[in-house]
Amino acid sequence: MWVYLNDRCVRKEDARVSVFDHGFLYGDGVYETLRVYQGRVFQLERHVARLHRSCELIGLDLPIQDEQWNPIIRELLTRNRLHDAGLRVTVSRGEGEIGIDPMLCPASTVVFMAKPTRAFSEKQHEEGFTLHLSSVRRNPEVTQSPQIKATSFLNNILAKQEATAMGADDALMLNMKGQLAECTTSNIFLIKDQLLQTPAVECGILVGITRDVVMELAEGQDLTVEEGSYSLEQLLHADECFITNTGFEIMPVSKIGNTQIGQGKKGPWTHVLCTAFRKNLNRYLGPSLTS
Amino acid sequence: MWVYLNDRCVRKEDARVSVFDHGFLYGDGVYETLRVYQGRVFQLERHVARLHRSCELIGLDLPIQDEQWNPIIRELLTRNRLHDAGLRVTVSRGEGEIGIDPMLCPASTVVFMAKPTRAFSEKQHEEGFTLHLSSVRRNPEVTQSPQIKATSFLNNILAKQEATAMGADDALMLNMKGQLAECTTSNIFLIKDQLLQTPAVECGILVGITRDVVMELAEGQDLTVEEGSYSLEQLLHADECFITNTGFEIMPVSKIGNTQIGQGKKGPWTHVLCTAFRKNLNRYLGPSLTS
Repeated sequence: MWVYLNDRCVRKEDARVSVFDHGFLYGDGVYETLRVYQGRVFQLERHVARLHRSCELIGLDLPIQDEQWNPIIRELLTRNRLHDAGLRVTVSRGEGEIGIDPMLCPASTVVFMAKPTRAFSEKQHEEGFTLHLSSVRRNPEVTQSPQIKATSFLNNILAKQEATAMGADDALMLNMKGQLAECTTSNIFLIKDQLLQTPAVECGILVGITRDVVMELAEGQDLTVEEGSYSLEQLLHADECFITNTGFEIMPVSKIGNTQIGQGKKGPWTHVLCTAFRKNLNRYLGPSLTS
Repeated sequence: MWVYLNDRCVRKEDARVSVFDHGFLYGDGVYETLRVYQGRVFQLERHVARLHRSCELIGLDLPIQDEQWNPIIRELLTRNRLHDAGLRVTVSRGEGEIGIDPMLCPASTVVFMAKPTRAFSEKQHEEGFTLHLSSVRRNPEVTQSPQIKATSFLNNILAKQEATAMGADDALMLNMKGQLAECTTSNIFLIKDQLLQTPAVECGILVGITRDVVMELAEGQDLTVEEGSYSLEQLLHADECFITNTGFEIMPVSKIGNTQIGQGKKGPWTHVLCTAFRKNLNRYLGPSLTS
């Protein structure tokens, strides 16, 4: 297994960073998670743009030029003999003296990792996820904006731990006002009477790339798309609910705690969107990087 | 320069962790910063207790037994030929597959680092720090408790960056209610009419060890100690203000933004507390670990 570290591919066991890396000492870094379908990257440009934005928001230098992404990903996939893969790109502040001032670190650290895509069965995609309503609220904008896809991720980890302890697949996080925000690594959607609703960026979410794609696909259906602020009450009375991320694409939600949502399995509109996603996937993919 | 990593001292250049360490990927870890005076650790027991508490709050296994601390610190100081030192102890979730679930990581990573104490001049201790009133608010308890001394530290880094850009020594952070919380790595105190006031834990602070010591020392003076919630207005009209941490002990605050606090330098009560700190330091130190 190979990992790209700073300027070259190295074996996994050699992919190590200094304990003085501020990514390790202070969670001072940002990341992206991408997906590759048969050698083709899903929505590369949007991921690159979002990483630029995360870097900007924390004043971090991104030492990878946009044109380097495809060659790096190609090498990583080839060396790991992967055609279908999940990628993780991490940029940390780099090595520096102890102290929280980013200026202590002269050069960022860059890591690209690839792993086989995690398979969710058809059954799981039919039955959906159960969510635990977390007691952990999502970081408000004024403390650490959820729009920064940051490696300081403890907020979400705490929510995930609680959900796991409750036997749920993931945690539903509310914002400080008690409105729906997002899950630990995914965006949430509800459907009520042909209205597709999802928390707006102002609710404190990371704007997901699959979220954007789903909203685009919904425009082609008899669904009205609405971004706004929604209560837990609205969610519990929705006809359907699903969550989206790069890894599992569109995953129905069957239950929030003990409350069944809609039919408690993949609903008809969710099915329509899943089908549209599959059917249109091709146009969201870049050129093939493997042979 | 030597670093203690997991179970032995290694040279700094060999002190490396996997890029799959969840400390690096997700800021999933906790830490402590300690100070050594002439081979003697300041308040070791309280630091150990606080690290236990941080670990507990994130469900992290601390693989170092309490009786190992002194031998490890002794070896680290000896190898680095240090008598006066700052120590940093980091415990991360350890190496694991990509994914935020802590259960992916079978064993924590432990790092002890030592560096020479950063010297602040007498002049700096007389003139004090200037603070920038940060637009970044301190994490509320329900998102990521400030009582967890976590390596997911971006909240404070963002505040520190802003302060540095404004030419200030540090950032003053308010909580979500607009009350005084703390600075990026220190607690804050105000003095008004022989009343020594400091934000209570409920205001969203990490309970500092130097903070505790200062409160103990104040009891021996003609000062009444009060923990409560305080407004920026109260701070701006205080007679004196200072901040405390393990590194600089007690540091006067001369200005918040453009507003001078009290006389704009170390005030008389702050002087009394600094003197009491020096005079009583001995009883807060452990046995000598160096010869």
